[in-house]
Amino acid sequence: MKTILLIGIGAGNPAQLTVEAIDALNAADVFFVVDKGARTSDLIRLREEICARFITAPRYRVASIPDPKRDRAPADYLAAVETWHHERAVAYETAITDELKDGETGAFLVWGDPALYDSTIRILDQVLARGVVAFRYRVIPGISAVQALAAAHRIPLNSIGGAVHVTTGRRLAEAVPTEADTIVVMLDDGQGLAGFPRDEFDIYWGAYLGTADEVLIAGPASDVVEDILRLRRDRRAAKGWIMDIFLLRRHEIP
Amino acid sequence: MKTILLIGIGAGNPAQLTVEAIDALNAADVFFVVDKGARTSDLIRLREEICARFITAPRYRVASIPDPKRDRAPADYLAAVETWHHERAVAYETAITDELKDGETGAFLVWGDPALYDSTIRILDQVLARGVVAFRYRVIPGISAVQALAAAHRIPLNSIGGAVHVTTGRRLAEAVPTEADTIVVMLDDGQGLAGFPRDEFDIYWGAYLGTADEVLIAGPASDVVEDILRLRRDRRAAKGWIMDIFLLRRHEIP
Ligand SMILES: C[S@@+](CC[C@H](N)C(=O)[O-])C[C@H]1O[C@@H](n2cnc3c(N)ncnc32)[C@H](O)[C@@H]1O
Ligand SMILES: C[S@@+](CC[C@H](N)C(=O)[O-])C[C@H]1O[C@@H](n2cnc3c(N)ncnc32)[C@H](O)[C@@H]1O
Repeated sequence: MKTILLIGIGAGNPAQLTVEAIDALNAADVFFVVDKGARTSDLIRLREEICARFITAPRYRVASIPDPKRDRAPADYLAAVETWHHERAVAYETAITDELKDGETGAFLVWGDPALYDSTIRILDQVLARGVVAFRYRVIPGISAVQALAAAHRIPLNSIGGAVHVTTGRRLAEAVPTEADTIVVMLDDGQGLAGFPRDEFDIYWGAYLGTADEVLIAGPASDVVEDILRLRRDRRAAKGWIMDIFLLRRHEIP
Repeated sequence: MKTILLIGIGAGNPAQLTVEAIDALNAADVFFVVDKGARTSDLIRLREEICARFITAPRYRVASIPDPKRDRAPADYLAAVETWHHERAVAYETAITDELKDGETGAFLVWGDPALYDSTIRILDQVLARGVVAFRYRVIPGISAVQALAAAHRIPLNSIGGAVHVTTGRRLAEAVPTEADTIVVMLDDGQGLAGFPRDEFDIYWGAYLGTADEVLIAGPASDVVEDILRLRRDRRAAKGWIMDIFLLRRHEIP
């Protein structure tokens, strides 16, 4: 039997790795790396730093998995994502078949928590469902960007007894009318940040959390969102990419 | 200046501790322990196990903070919680004033992630706002029960591009009509579990996650909720307490 470990590595700070994740890193014979092109070279560097820092007796191999092209402006969003996941499943299947021997352990390092806005679990399930290659797999949770944001601002995620609604920039507009007094927004291209009703919320924003480039801004949304948008544009232009996340807390009805 | 560290210790499995949390444990001169009575003795045991396992040169003191009595069936829920938090703030203030010297580091071990359904951050903010004792504090995120649940079931928290609504048993009924196709329920006394529309959801349930008593059940809610309710009653009676959490995934509209 082959074993695969899906290891959550935290959202930017290598010290966010858990003991369980470190044990898993040290158990891996093969690290699978999905090749997403140059844009993410800082992220690849963090992964290398993690392996160098926490693997005590390096004896692992690295197997790269080509990432199929994705249609970034599809007519049918869900269908395009599904096609892309299918192609990825075949690429993963090939890598697991060819690069991992029976009795060996393979690992994927997953940014943040593997359960949050990451497709690796779904792809491995698709590979298993195809029935071409057999393996067992385990998921090792990691600190997510949601938690890194709350910790950096030293705020609770929930209001007292309240709900926490985690969503994407694309779906923020749907979330605003719900009852939740806390909305966390990930995967935003800036549209969500620019488009919500500022007078209803305080905002807690963070970019590049846990890294040397970390920036935090908080305040009443009407006061600070323009500053955040400006800073977001500048940092993004300077670095070539940005990872940011924000929490909206609805003002209490007096 | 006094320093206080609020350390997330994960939701049951000591191997979920992060490197940052272990460093924080080793930096502490004083551990503050809130005395909640015998009911939580298993949880106290886990904390002791964590200190014994991860603190390399024990030189710490333990200071206990009495927990003011809480009205469990108040007429006004929010007001009762606020009173209780105020009394707790005074108790914390006294402990920090009396037990922690200037230049020393105090620590609170917080179950799961300090940002999720835990009052320590709010209490420390209240203590600071009272202005009687000064300190700086840092929050160290931990793996939450939400993540432990998803990892144990090997499921993503979100559907593709979908939102994740985290709420309490008490508020589940409000969450069902929202758009979110994923609802995670914590702090449920069994009422939430018994009361939602079973034909609309799959359920992923877990109790005592990460511990030797861990139990997991998953399936279409109409098929498995009765079994979960029975098991929940039995385990709770046998052990004297239960910690459980569940995720509801709305069936896709065909
Ligand atoms: C594809 S999702 C992956 C999330 C990851 N699995 C987690 O648990 O955090 C990427 C999104 O996470 C957020 N994110 C991840 N790391 C971050 C960081 N260090 N700082 C700010 N946002 C981050 C951003 O919203 C980004 O768009
Ligand atoms: C007061 S809240 C604290 C949550 C914690 N801060 C966290 O991040 O997981 C306690 C609730 O968390 C959930 N919980 C915590 N640990 C758990 C475990 N090991 N197994 C199942 N549920 C757990 C239960 O829903 C419980 O009612």
